Formats: sequence, structure tokens, C-alpha cells
Amino acid sequence: MDGSKEKIILNVGGIRHEMYCSTLRTFPGTKLCSLTEPHASTLYDYNPITKEFFFDRSAQLFGYVLSYYRTKHLHCPADTCRSVLEEELAFWEISDAQLAPCCWLKLTNKDSQLEEFNVWDENEHTDDERLVVQVERRDFSWRARWQPKIWSTFEKPFSSLSAKCLAIISLLFIIGIVIIFCEETKAQYEYFAANLTIFGRSDVIHSIHEPYYHQAPYLLHLELFCVLWFTFEFSMRFFFCPDKKKFLRNPLNVADFLSLFPVYIELFTTEQIQKMPSLALWLGFVRIVYLLKLLKIIKLIETPLILRVLSYTFKSIIQEICFLLMILAFETLFFGSLFFYGELLGVHPSYRGDLHFTDIIICFWWALITLTTVGYGDIIPLTTFGQVMAAFAAIFGMLTIIIPIPIFLVKFKGYYATAITKQKLKMSKKQ
Amino acid sequence: MDGSKEKIILNVGGIRHEMYCSTLRTFPGTKLCSLTEPHASTLYDYNPITKEFFFDRSAQLFGYVLSYYRTKHLHCPADTCRSVLEEELAFWEISDAQLAPCCWLKLTNKDSQLEEFNVWDENEHTDDERLVVQVERRDFSWRARWQPKIWSTFEKPFSSLSAKCLAIISLLFIIGIVIIFCEETKAQYEYFAANLTIFGRSDVIHSIHEPYYHQAPYLLHLELFCVLWFTFEFSMRFFFCPDKKKFLRNPLNVADFLSLFPVYIELFTTEQIQKMPSLALWLGFVRIVYLLKLLKIIKLIETPLILRVLSYTFKSIIQEICFLLMILAFETLFFGSLFFYGELLGVHPSYRGDLHFTDIIICFWWALITLTTVGYGDIIPLTTFGQVMAAFAAIFGMLTIIIPIPIFLVKFKGYYATAITKQKLKMSKKQ
Amino acid sequence: MDGSKEKIILNVGGIRHEMYCSTLRTFPGTKLCSLTEPHASTLYDYNPITKEFFFDRSAQLFGYVLSYYRTKHLHCPADTCRSVLEEELAFWEISDAQLAPCCWLKLTNKDSQLEEFNVWDENEHTDDERLVVQVERRDFSWRARWQPKIWSTFEKPFSSLSAKCLAIISLLFIIGIVIIFCEETKAQYEYFAANLTIFGRSDVIHSIHEPYYHQAPYLLHLELFCVLWFTFEFSMRFFFCPDKKKFLRNPLNVADFLSLFPVYIELFTTEQIQKMPSLALWLGFVRIVYLLKLLKIIKLIETPLILRVLSYTFKSIIQEICFLLMILAFETLFFGSLFFYGELLGVHPSYRGDLHFTDIIICFWWALITLTTVGYGDIIPLTTFGQVMAAFAAIFGMLTIIIPIPIFLVKFKGYYATAITKQKLKMSKKQ
Amino acid sequence: MDGSKEKIILNVGGIRHEMYCSTLRTFPGTKLCSLTEPHASTLYDYNPITKEFFFDRSAQLFGYVLSYYRTKHLHCPADTCRSVLEEELAFWEISDAQLAPCCWLKLTNKDSQLEEFNVWDENEHTDDERLVVQVERRDFSWRARWQPKIWSTFEKPFSSLSAKCLAIISLLFIIGIVIIFCEETKAQYEYFAANLTIFGRSDVIHSIHEPYYHQAPYLLHLELFCVLWFTFEFSMRFFFCPDKKKFLRNPLNVADFLSLFPVYIELFTTEQIQKMPSLALWLGFVRIVYLLKLLKIIKLIETPLILRVLSYTFKSIIQEICFLLMILAFETLFFGSLFFYGELLGVHPSYRGDLHFTDIIICFWWALITLTTVGYGDIIPLTTFGQVMAAFAAIFGMLTIIIPIPIFLVKFKGYYATAITKQKLKMSKKQ
Repeated sequence: MDGSKEKIILNVGGIRHEMYCSTLRTFPGTKLCSLTEPHASTLYDYNPITKEFFFDRSAQLFGYVLSYYRTKHLHCPADTCRSVLEEELAFWEISDAQLAPCCWLKLTNKDSQLEEFNVWDENEHTDDERLVVQVERRDFSWRARWQPKIWSTFEKPFSSLSAKCLAIISLLFIIGIVIIFCEETKAQYEYFAANLTIFGRSDVIHSIHEPYYHQAPYLLHLELFCVLWFTFEFSMRFFFCPDKKKFLRNPLNVADFLSLFPVYIELFTTEQIQKMPSLALWLGFVRIVYLLKLLKIIKLIETPLILRVLSYTFKSIIQEICFLLMILAFETLFFGSLFFYGELLGVHPSYRGDLHFTDIIICFWWALITLTTVGYGDIIPLTTFGQVMAAFAAIFGMLTIIIPIPIFLVKFKGYYATAITKQKLKMSKKQ
Repeated sequence: MDGSKEKIILNVGGIRHEMYCSTLRTFPGTKLCSLTEPHASTLYDYNPITKEFFFDRSAQLFGYVLSYYRTKHLHCPADTCRSVLEEELAFWEISDAQLAPCCWLKLTNKDSQLEEFNVWDENEHTDDERLVVQVERRDFSWRARWQPKIWSTFEKPFSSLSAKCLAIISLLFIIGIVIIFCEETKAQYEYFAANLTIFGRSDVIHSIHEPYYHQAPYLLHLELFCVLWFTFEFSMRFFFCPDKKKFLRNPLNVADFLSLFPVYIELFTTEQIQKMPSLALWLGFVRIVYLLKLLKIIKLIETPLILRVLSYTFKSIIQEICFLLMILAFETLFFGSLFFYGELLGVHPSYRGDLHFTDIIICFWWALITLTTVGYGDIIPLTTFGQVMAAFAAIFGMLTIIIPIPIFLVKFKGYYATAITKQKLKMSKKQ
Repeated sequence: MDGSKEKIILNVGGIRHEMYCSTLRTFPGTKLCSLTEPHASTLYDYNPITKEFFFDRSAQLFGYVLSYYRTKHLHCPADTCRSVLEEELAFWEISDAQLAPCCWLKLTNKDSQLEEFNVWDENEHTDDERLVVQVERRDFSWRARWQPKIWSTFEKPFSSLSAKCLAIISLLFIIGIVIIFCEETKAQYEYFAANLTIFGRSDVIHSIHEPYYHQAPYLLHLELFCVLWFTFEFSMRFFFCPDKKKFLRNPLNVADFLSLFPVYIELFTTEQIQKMPSLALWLGFVRIVYLLKLLKIIKLIETPLILRVLSYTFKSIIQEICFLLMILAFETLFFGSLFFYGELLGVHPSYRGDLHFTDIIICFWWALITLTTVGYGDIIPLTTFGQVMAAFAAIFGMLTIIIPIPIFLVKFKGYYATAITKQKLKMSKKQ
Repeated sequence: MDGSKEKIILNVGGIRHEMYCSTLRTFPGTKLCSLTEPHASTLYDYNPITKEFFFDRSAQLFGYVLSYYRTKHLHCPADTCRSVLEEELAFWEISDAQLAPCCWLKLTNKDSQLEEFNVWDENEHTDDERLVVQVERRDFSWRARWQPKIWSTFEKPFSSLSAKCLAIISLLFIIGIVIIFCEETKAQYEYFAANLTIFGRSDVIHSIHEPYYHQAPYLLHLELFCVLWFTFEFSMRFFFCPDKKKFLRNPLNVADFLSLFPVYIELFTTEQIQKMPSLALWLGFVRIVYLLKLLKIIKLIETPLILRVLSYTFKSIIQEICFLLMILAFETLFFGSLFFYGELLGVHPSYRGDLHFTDIIICFWWALITLTTVGYGDIIPLTTFGQVMAAFAAIFGMLTIIIPIPIFLVKFKGYYATAITKQKLKMSKKQ
């Protein structure tokens, strides 16, 4: 039996593996190769009776490590955890860059999603921890004792009975202000309609009186009452908030803050508004922030896990969505321009109607409405050339709608699996 | 050879595992650690000749348990059944909370879907079982003997020949009542159109006669005939139903019950209806419940498995859909308000047309029709500012349509796999 | 050592498994249980020296079989092939109905898809095989020798050069007839428009001449020329078709056959058509079957694999699609009725416009156009009540669009994976 | 013990497998079968003491190979890498065509995606490599030294500070030319509107002056300034481009080249344009290529990985999309024709309105707008027959939108997984 046929026996965790020395010498410089050197028996745990080298390692992956020496390709079993593989390869002094490309697909996705998701999860709990830290730091002050209670009363509607009551009161005020907001639009519309008639159609209807902006005072008083409540609520939440900076970075809180002022401005400028009613319109416009308060209702419901994952998914693909909106904008410009020239060049000289667009901006508007398949029909192509352009726009719009679906789906599936897992993990740890 | 290098041999189900004692001492308090204690050989099945501890356990997962002692990370193979892992870990006295996060992903989803789906499956068979129980309890009464037959004749169209005949008769009556319903709308429309002309356009057409509501009597008699059949059918089904409460909780049955009355009311108030025709309109409106009977046709077809899974999926994500409808409602309010102020603020003073909306409610209507990409075109933005708002609404609508797809898909795939499996399981057990 | 601790050793394919006799006695009547009986050593291959029973079976699944005796739950590894498991369980005399539900999910889907797909694949090749059979049966007749060649020349455009030429000629004729079809519509439209003006608007335009249907004769002659070619082609294909019944069952061939007659009818009834021009319209309507010939172009292109899978997927879910169309029909009826009464009940008495619908059929039309999110805007709700109905219809429509996506996707993925596999299998066998 | 029960022991990589000789004789001509021949002990590595044949191969797949001899079906474990299986089967002299169909599904998809994706990846880097080659070839010329720097300054905005500045300047010029393009449309629209009025509506407005095309000269000068910059940029990029042919094959570069001329033509033909203004319209139309420059902005942003995968996916299914567009075209022709005859045949003789379509082309336009669910509402069916056609078109449109989703999704998921893997692989190799 010649030297190349010399065998070596490895006992890895109790399982005997047998191979030719020449096999192990395939990759010099690795731990397994050094076993073939003469002094190996002194360096490693060698049993001279059974002629085995013993390694206290898992036998599962060692088979694949050995295959690497035999076939020069490093593979791994299906769904291997990355960390396990790395630890095992590090022990045997093999670089994980040697892994065959087909096996990289078996390793990776879940890990990265897990990492991303963990970051999100940690964010959620910062507030509570910060509070606990604060409580520990200055334990005996009045504020420290009450802050957590008051804060959770205002921010966590399910934490206690008083929090629930507060949430219901808050909810009623929000619904109230939305109704008031809708009612107020009536006065503004009436003023506006009168105004438009006078200036624009003075020959049609002769109105003797100057139009003036008249808003029912009881509406303003009701609105003031609601805003006073919101002022109280906002200041409480701000005062007892454990992290002021984070509180102000939240766009919903900024909207809350801004929504406190319009009613005061209107109250102190009633005289001026009578003279300058467009200010009333602008103040009305600003009041749309009241509607943002409706988003707080979401807090009042315990959102199902699947929807929290959904919102997280949306945040994670915000960059991609912006990019797609840029492409939509480009398509809008492109098809709008095509439509503009298509209609101008294609229209027959004997055509006796109006062109229903007056500039290229309207064409851009048409393009967007067609691309999103809304299709109002206020602007439509009149010429065959324009119709061909419109047909392309409609087909591209159909394809554009489909683009974000796979991105969304792929990300969502990953995060959902992770979220379900995390939830089970928590429940399992609580037991 | 020092103590830390002392080896221990475990024979797990015939496979020898070999490791250093120090490895097993990593996690004190577990069964494997106790093997390193001096008196272990008396507690466990120790063979002094081969120096092996014998455990009559599966060798498959033991490799992973041992890796836990070696690397301090507990992993598991791909697609491990949760129950198998739990039983194995319990035997070796290790908590399953130690499992590495990357491996939780390998365990979980299928289990939970299976559990949810089982609940559904059990619901389906309650009725049959209840019937069987009833039959066993009072075996000799007349009702007990006939109830199952009559009940299945009325409820299960494929159970017997008489059931099939009954189903076809019932189907003809349903189609008949729907046709009658459509015919009746004509009289109502004519009355209404005449009425509208008189009050609203008295200057255009001079009608001498008082408009009066005239419905062909034969239609009413045909309807009465159908309703008599439905009354008979409903009372039979109610009388022989094994579970009255469940029967009444079914919304379709409630609709059936309510649909029995309008025709009688109309019959007994023909005089009054001549004078107060709006009652006829309301009675007509209530008769829309007749259409719900069409849903019974679904019962007459053996629904494919995939559609039963679909309907189950819908039920399971009803909460999420409600939530998304809330978000759609919020978007409607928000974009509607933006559109309202956008048009008012943006319209040029020299504009000489009508505003085509009269209050903010119409703007909300516009917003919803744009968000769902229906886009009737009855209300369209006239100003550039309004068009920008509309563009945002159209884009948001496009994104909103996409949101429920992944939720729906992820759930559906899980349930479908389970349903296919269940079906095979049943077929396999029948053999 | 008591009897319950008595051990038994199984050598399955060279791997030693060791267990207590009591473990094997868990399931009486199975092969493994019978090993514990006294006379087992004579029945099975028992080695008295090593005290092992030898079984020449795979060791892979035996671990799971043994686990079944230990834990009373039968599991299997991930992605096990069903046939392998069944064979192994049959050898050990265990029913496969014992498999734990969580493991059924690991076994099944791929098998069934493979079966379905195989059926499809076999259908494709029937024609060729039938031809070969025919050729073998009556080998020496003139027809038998030429039939395969002529048939493949007409049916398989890529089989030879002459087939390619024929396909191109056929294609030109198809394009020609479509252009002729479009040209012919002009004469029909002109006749119709004139006709409409005379009867309906006699007060507006006084036309002296009787309108008569005048079609350019050269169009009819060109059409006749094309149809003569199609007659030739159809008769050749029918005559040399190996399976006449299958040929006539194909709807495209029936359409081909029907499309041969309209031109002859018109040719022999030119006199009558002058007097009864509505016949011309009906003949024109029937000529739409010419357009179906365009579908043959698909045959001229080598369709990518993914699209053949797509068409197969469509065929396999045709039942589900019909079902969903029924639900759409129900929604149409339901929302149409709601809209009808919503508008009638909600309209203000002072409303001075026309109702833009005249009966409930128009409301059904409106409902369908809203549900599919087309939204023409010809009929729109005028009352708030009707708008609420329309809003529900729009939202339901949005949800209805989403329903078929997961069904389609789940089926498609399965078939696509199978198709890819089949393709590789074929290529691998050819090598 | 008879001959058929004669056992043979194989030591594959240290693991002992034991089987009957008869088992190995199942497939004559394979390596394992030859072991049963008398002279096998001299051909292979046979140990006479332990009576084992030794093979230095992986034991993982050998179990499956042995099962092939026992059950006559060749299976493989889940997610096996194709190359591993092929190598192993080749060693044991078994054809991989013997693999059971159910296991082909476990092998294939990932491999093919990897191959496709690699091709793409290699394309990306050709330019750099070509440059490096060029640099090596003529090392000392002036051009060779500067080319890579200048080229990367113009083509890779993130390569250096000067590249960033150049990119910003270029971006400003692009935005500038788009604004100029929009401004220029105004003059063209005004000319056109005046022109239309004169010829078409001479009776309405009497315009004394000949209309002439008047474009503000400063716009033309600004445009010229921008185009001069683009000329400079294009010539630099062309001159220093390492691969001229590839540069000219890029459609964006061709568009760049074409966009350089319109302004010069207009500049040198100002006289003629005054007389022949339709030329101005055509020159304006050609200028739409300016908008294509906006696509370069995408280069300025580091596109997220997911979007590069998206664009690659689109390229890979371009054939399928073309095919689906053909089907859409067929549907358009078919439903358009049905609509045409549906309206002509269905319209009531007493109908006193205009038909809103004048030829069949308009019907095709209607069909496309309905199929894409845009639904402008400019052409709507007036007859019940036409409405039924429209309903079918709307439903088919809804289904047509769904078709490309699964194709897109299946391809995207594969490529995305591969791309993520490649990225990790690169990062791992850099370390």
C-alpha cells in the first residue's frame, strides 16, 4: 500500500470518518491538512490505540467540510443558519468565501431580515426604558413618581381605566372637531360662491350687498372649546414626556401643535376677516391638520400584528417607492408632451370644436390621470395620433401599477415571518 | 491526560457520541451535565464494558442538542416539527426558549395555520354531530326519526334525489322572485318620474291627473305565491333545524325571515299606498333582501376547495380589512378637504363657470371615487392646485389598492397548503 | 437488569440502532414488534454473534420510524418524497395515515401538481402518436404516405421550409381579411347613419333618396378571394387530419368553418340586401369570426414556456373564475338595486334635472362599470344616499379585483416549477 | 446461508454500509455492481481483515445511491445542489436522468436563475475591464493616461468631487432645458389655436392679420446655450469612451445625439418657419427627446439593489410582455368589433341622438380604454346589446391586468434572492 493510499481516521464527536491523507493535503494551511504532518499526534487529541484523532465538534457539518476536501467544492445543507456555518468553518480554518454560489442562496435572506427587524423592535421600547432609567435616577421627586403614570394615562389607552376614559373623551373631541370643521366649510363656500358670482358674472345676477364672510359664532366657540381641550392634552403630554426631542420629532405631535393656533388667530382677527375673507379660506385650509388627529384613533385600537408589519414594510421600502414615483413623474412628463404634440399635429384643419386643453400643464395632468387608470374623461384625445399616445399611456399605466407589488410582497413576507417568530419567542420566554 | 480532557461516550439509540466531560458541564442542571457526576452510572443505563451511557432516544436531534453544549447556540434542522423539538428538548431538560432566533423561523408558521384551520374545520361538522347526538338521545319519537331526513333534504341539495328536486324548485322560485322584483321597479320608476316632473318642472309638462302609484296586480299575486313558498320552506327549515340558536345567528336566515313580510304589508295597505306612494318605494327597497337568496345558489354548486379556502381566508383577515377601510376613510376625508380648499383658493377670479361641487360632502365623494381609481369625471379639479391634490389622491389610491394583496396572499397560501393536506389526510384515512 | 430493560440491536443497512424491547412493543402487529417475539431470530436475518437483526433497507427514514415507537408520533424530514415514505412505511408495516398533520404539509403539494401537469403533457402528444399508429397500420396506401407530411405542413409552421412559406401566405391572407373587414364596416355605418337620420330625425334633414346599402364590389371580391383560400386551407387540414373528431371539437376550427359562409350568402343575396339592409348588418356581425383567425398568429411564434404554463394555469382554474364571475354578477344585481332605490328615495323633490337612468337594467350596467373600476361617468349618483351606495360598490370592486390574484399565483407557481423541471428532464434525457 | 443472502460491507468515508450482494446486482454495469464480481478485491481498496471496501467519498448522498439499488427509485434530499449530485452520481456511474421526477423539483430553479443572473453581472463590468486592458496596452500615450479619469468623471457621478460637480451642472442644464421646452409649447399652442380659428371658424371671429408663428427669441437663445453644453458633454463622452460601438448602441446616447440638432435647424430656418409653421410643430415634437435626458437623473442617485433587480426582471420578461400586449391588441380588435355591431344592431329606430362614434377605429379606441379600466366615458354604449359587450370587455380587462403579476413575481423573487446573495458574497470576499 503506497503512501498516497495511507488512511487517516477522524473521530468527530463520536462519529468515525476515514479518508486518505492525500485528500486532506488538498488545501494546505488548514487544520485538517496539518493532521497529515508527522508531529500532528502531539498537537491534537490522538488516540494511538484506535489510531483516531478526536475532535469534540458536531458531526453534522463536518461531512460537508470533508466533501470540500474531496470535491473541492464547499456546499452546505438546506436552510443552514449562517452563524453555525461560520463557527464551524472558523474552527476548521476555512474561509466562508469558499462556499459555492448555489449554497449562498440557502443561507442568507432570513438573517438580514432578522437584523433589520430587530432594529425596529428596539426602537419601540426605548421610551419605556428611558422612563425606567429616569425613575431610577431621581427617585424621590414629585415628578418622578407621577410622570410614568400620567404619561401612560395619556399615551397608552389600554394601560388603565382612567386612560381608557381619557381616550374616549379625547375621541369624542376629535370627532367633534371634525364635524365642526365640515360645518365651517359651508360658510366659506357660500362666501366664495357669492364672491365669484359678483366679480365673474356681474351681468348675470345683480347682487346689491357687498358679500361678506359670515360664520356662525357658535361654531367658533365650539371649536375654541375643543381646542382648549387639545391645548390641555398637548401640554400634559409634552410636560410628562420622558424624551422631549423625540416627542417633537414626531410629525403627528408637530401637527397637533400647529392645530392649536388657527382658531385663536381667527378669534382675534374677526374684524379683519370681514374685510379680507381670503384669510378665512387660508385659516380653513390650515385646519385640515385637525383631520390628522383622526390617525390617533388607530392608537385606540390594538392594531393586529399583520398591520404593524405592513407599516414597517412600507417604511423599509420608502426609498423604492420614491424612486417609482420619480419614474411615474417621468412618464407623466413624457406622455403629456407626446399627447400635446399628438393632438396639435393630428387635428384636422376642418375640426370645428374647441381644443379642451390650453397649455402643456393640462396635458401632464391628463397623462397622470390616465397612467393611474382613474380616467376622468375631462380631457380626451380627439385625433387618431393622440389616441395612439393615450393607448400607450394606458398600457404603461397598467404596467406601472404592477411594479411595486413584488417588491412589497417579497419584503412583507420576510418581515411577517420574522414578526410571527418574535411573537412566539416572547410568549415562550414568558412561560 | 488531564481531567478536562476526560471523555464520555453516549449511545443514543445505537449511535455513539463522544465528547469531553467539560463540554457537558457547560450548562449545569441539565440531564447531560448530571452524567458527569460520579454517581451517574447508577442513575442511568450505564454499560461498564463499553463505558457507554445508553439512551433510547432518536439520534436525529441529539446532534443539535450536543452542538448546543459545544457552541452555546441551540439550532435545529430545516422544517423541524415544533412538537418533535419540544419533546426532545424536554427529555434533555433544556428550555426551548434557548433556540436561536434564526431557527425560530424554521419552526413556526405551519403549526399556527394548522391550529387556526382546525378550528374552522371543526365548526363545519358541529351540526351533523349535534343531530347524531339528538338522534341518540330520544330515539323513538316521530320527530327524531324524521328530522335528520327532512333537514338534510332542505339543507343539503346533494344528499338525495328528493333534495335535488327541492333544490331545483327552490332555485326556480328564487329566479322568479328576482325577475318579479325587477319588473316591480318599473311601476315605481314611472310613478317617481311623473311625480318629479309635476313638482319640479310644472312649467314644462302640464299633467292634469294626480300621479298615483299603479302596480300591476298580477305581479303582486305572483310575488305572494313565491313568498308563500318561501314561508313554507323557511318554517320547515326552522322547525327541523337541530340547533335553533345557530340557525338564527346566520345572517342569511335572518334576511330570509325579513323578506317574508313586505308583500303582506303591501297587500294589506294597498289603499294607503295609493295615497302615500313613498311607502311603496320603501317596501321596494326592503325587497332587495330577495336578492340575497341568490347566494343560496352557491350552495347548489359543489364549491371547489380553493374557494372555500378563499372564503375562510377572507374571514380570517376581516379585522385587517376593516382597518384598511378606516385608512381609506381617513384618506377620503383628508384628500376631500384638500380638494375643497385647493379649488376654492386656486380658482382664478376671472373664472366664469360653475363650481361643480356645492359642499364638502361632494368633495369626499370625489376623493373616494378617485382613490378607488373609478374616476367618473363628474367632479374634476379646475385649478392647478386642485389638480396637484387630485394627482396625489390618484397615486395614493393606486398604492392603497396594492396594500391588501400581500396580506391576502400570505394567509391564503398557508391555508391552501393546509386544506390540500387535510383533504389528502381524509382520503388516506378512508382507504 | 430486568426484562423491560432488555435491549435489541437492529442493523439497518449497516447502521446499528439500539433500543429497549419494550419500545418496540408499543405498536403490536407491526414488523418491528414481531422482532421481540422468541422465534424472531429464525424469521429474520439474525446474526447470533453480534446479536443484530439485519435489514437491507435505507437508514435515512428508519430513524423516523424508530422515533414513532419512542414518541408515538410519526414525523418525516423536510421535503420527503411521498412515494419514498410510503414504500418505507409499507415495509415496516405501518399505515401512512399515522403521519402527524404537521408533516403532511411537507409531503404533498408537488406530487399533485406533477400529476395534473403530466395529464396535460400527455394530451399534447396524442396527435403525433395517433399519426404514427395510423402510419404503421396501413403503410402502403397513397394517403398514409403523404398524410403526415401535408398535415405537418399545414399545422406545424416550423416543421419545414414549405410549412414556413404556407404560414406566411396564410398570415398575409389573415391580415388582409381583417383589413377588408374594417373597410366593410364603413359602408354599413354610412347606411345606418343615413337610415337613422331619416326615420328618427325627418324634421331635421330632408333626404330625398331612399337610403340603400351600397358596398364597394371590389371589397366583396377581395373578401371572396380570401375566403376561397381559407376554404382550400380548411378542407386540406380537415382531409389530412389524423383525428377528425378532435379536429371538430376544437372551437377555433368550428369558427373557421362558420367564417366560410357569410361572403357566399351576401354574394347570392345582393338583390335582397338592397331591400333588407339589416341582413347586411347581421352578416357583418357574423364576420367577427374572421378576427378569431388572428389567434393563429400565436401558433406562428414559438410561445415561451412561461406563457404555455400561464394558459394551462388559466384552464385549470376556469371553474374558480366562473364562480368569481357569479359573485361579480351577484354584486352587480345587489349594488344596482341599491343604487336604484337609493337614487329614487334620496332625490330631493326640488331637483330639476333629468334622472339619467330609465330602468333598473341601466343601474345594473352602472354597478358593473363601477365594480370593475372602469367608471365611465355616464350614470352617476346624484343623491347622497346613492353616493354612499356607489362608494360601497367602488370599495367592493377594488376588493373583487384582488380576489383571483392569490388563486392564480399559487397555481401558477406550482405549474411553473413543474414545467421548468420537465424541460430540464427532457434535455437531460436527450444528452 | 445461501448466496443471495451473502453480505457485502462498504466503508464510505468512515461510515459502514452493509447490504446483500443481490441488492447491488440490481443495476449491472455500475461501479457498485462490479464490487460483487470475484476480482473486485484487487480493483478497489479492499481491507481483508474488516472485509470492507473503502471509498473516500462523502457519506451524505451515498445513502440515497444505495436506496436506488434497494427500491429502484433514485431520490435526493431537499435543496440538493445540482453539481454535488451530478459529481456523486458520476462517481458511482449512474446517470442523473434516473432521478425521480418529484426530486427534479428540489434541484433546479436556483441554478438556472444563477446562470442568467451571472450573465447580467458580467455585462456590467465589461466597460471597466476593457478600459483596464486598453490602459495596459498603450501605457504611455497622453490619451491613455487621461481617458479613464475623464471618462469616469463624465459617466460615474460618485467617483470623485469633480464628477459630482459636473453631475450637478449637468442636472441644472437638464432641468433648464425641460423648463424651456415647456415654455416653448406656449407659442406653438397660440399659433395653432389662432390657425384653427381662422380656417375652421372664420365666421365666428374675424382675424385680420395672417397668423404667424412667433417664438420669443430669448427662449431660443437659452435653448441654444443648453444645447451647446450638451454638445460639449456628448463629444467628451464619445471621445473618451473606451468602447465606441457599445456607446452608440445605447438608445439613450442616440437620443442625446439626435437632440442636438432641432435647435440648429430652427435657428437656420427662422425665415422659413414664419411661412411654414407646421415645421415648428414638428421640431417641437422632436424636442421631446430632451425629456429622455431626465432618465439620467436616475444615474445620479445610487439606485437601491431592489430596483436594479426590478429592471433586470423587466428585461428578462420583455418577450412575455410583448406576447401579452399582442393578446391585449387582439382583445381590443375583438371587443371593438363586437361593440360596433352591438351598437348598430341594438339601437332603437326611434333613437334621436347622435351616435358618438364615426368609424370602427373609434370603437377599437373605446375597447382599449375599457380594457385598461381607464374608462374616459367619451364613448359609451347606448344599447343594451352594446352594454353587454362592454360588460364583457370590462371583466376581461380586469382579468388581463392580473395576468402579468405572477410571471413578474416569480421571476423577481428568484433574481432578488440571487442578487442579495451576490452582494453578500462580494462583501464576504472583500473582508
